[in-house]
Amino acid sequence: MQNSEIYLESLITSTPQEGTDLAIKLARKSIAAIQTDLETRKNLRGNYAQDTTQLIASAQVIAVEFQTIAMANNYWKP
Amino acid sequence: MQNSEIYLESLITSTPQEGTDLAIKLARKSIAAIQTDLETRKNLRGNYAQDTTQLIASAQVIAVEFQTIAMANNYWKP
Amino acid sequence: MQNSEIYLESLITSTPQEGTDLAIKLARKSIAAIQTDLETRKNLRGNYAQDTTQLIASAQVIAVEFQTIAMANNYWKP
Amino acid sequence: MQNSEIYLESLITSTPQEGTDLAIKLARKSIAAIQTDLETRKNLRGNYAQDTTQLIASAQVIAVEFQTIAMANNYWKP
Amino acid sequence: MQNSEIYLESLITSTPQEGTDLAIKLARKSIAAIQTDLETRKNLRGNYAQDTTQLIASAQVIAVEFQTIAMANNYWKP
Amino acid sequence: MQNSEIYLESLITSTPQEGTDLAIKLARKSIAAIQTDLETRKNLRGNYAQDTTQLIASAQVIAVEFQTIAMANNYWKP
Repeated sequence: MQNSEIYLESLITSTPQEGTDLAIKLARKSIAAIQTDLETRKNLRGNYAQDTTQLIASAQVIAVEFQTIAMANNYWKP
Repeated sequence: MQNSEIYLESLITSTPQEGTDLAIKLARKSIAAIQTDLETRKNLRGNYAQDTTQLIASAQVIAVEFQTIAMANNYWKP
Repeated sequence: MQNSEIYLESLITSTPQEGTDLAIKLARKSIAAIQTDLETRKNLRGNYAQDTTQLIASAQVIAVEFQTIAMANNYWKP
Repeated sequence: MQNSEIYLESLITSTPQEGTDLAIKLARKSIAAIQTDLETRKNLRGNYAQDTTQLIASAQVIAVEFQTIAMANNYWKP
Repeated sequence: MQNSEIYLESLITSTPQEGTDLAIKLARKSIAAIQTDLETRKNLRGNYAQDTTQLIASAQVIAVEFQTIAMANNYWKP
Repeated sequence: MQNSEIYLESLITSTPQEGTDLAIKLARKSIAAIQTDLETRKNLRGNYAQDTTQLIASAQVIAVEFQTIAMANNYWKP
């Protein structure tokens, strides 16, 4: 499960929008940790990008990850 | 994944209702980050707007995003 | 997406029970923001009010909205 | 939507176990707010009490309501 | 709904691992509150323990309950 | 339900990435607590690693566990 590659050094981002990018990255990394084969993931991708139920479910994952990141950044308050 | 366009400068809104608008925007941006083709998204839209299961699932995503935004705005307390 | 009508001026309610009413209202407004046609929403309503899976999913949305409202009201502590 | 009956005066309970009872009550009230007919709800009940998918989904609603109630009670710390 | 048996005296546990045990217990108690017949629950158990969709949904319930318990224990920080 | 093996001594990790590893571990342990047979779990694994709906649902569980772990670590702020 442990990835030798370092992909997450910090939850801190400069802007909320970069926070959403990081949320998407975390969601993808979770999926990659379960389905470790890159080719399989690419093949599966066609499925869910056309299926609104799965797109909405993906947005739910991103929303939870974004909440965590927003907390870490104290909501990017000035 | 990174969008060059700036669409999220701040989580702060003037009113809770604007907070709900922002929550909906964040939910849509998550979906757009996965299904990047605008035409495909438009075509898919007809599906979920008629399907109560998907409408409810969308409302769940919006609820989580709204919670994050409400926290950021200290619940718009006067 | 922006509604010109003002429907949410504050997350503050007098009692927890009014908080649950507001949670339900927020959930409905999210759905109305996606399916904007009132007649279509009325027609769809018959579906989910008879379907326990969808009733439970609706209750999940309400639970998240209620948590946000409860936080905003400091849990209506005296 | 507004119920004239008062069913939720406070989120405060004496014990965590009473907190779980209240969480279940809140989940039921959410469903009753959407499916307002008592007879229909009783008939539907047979469905989901035999269906593990729906039982698990119900437990998810209860878990979120319980988290809110636990926060309100400062986790019943002595 | 009220169970006369006392099964939850406190959310405090000695270790995070005991916290996960308590989270699983709370999830089970929620299901038992809805499907009150022990024999029926035993029969249903075979279903979901073989169905990965339901196993994942169960893990989601446990994750939310564990979050509440972790908050109550201040994350078991020394 | 209680596992005699100690697998979770602390929620504290050195880095956010180790936090995601721990989140995945917690999610797996929840599933193992329900489906206790290792061989069955291995056989079931083939199912969900090919099914995007289940991969996304798994990522949702991991996101909630990660949020808890991130809170415990005060978001790994320096």
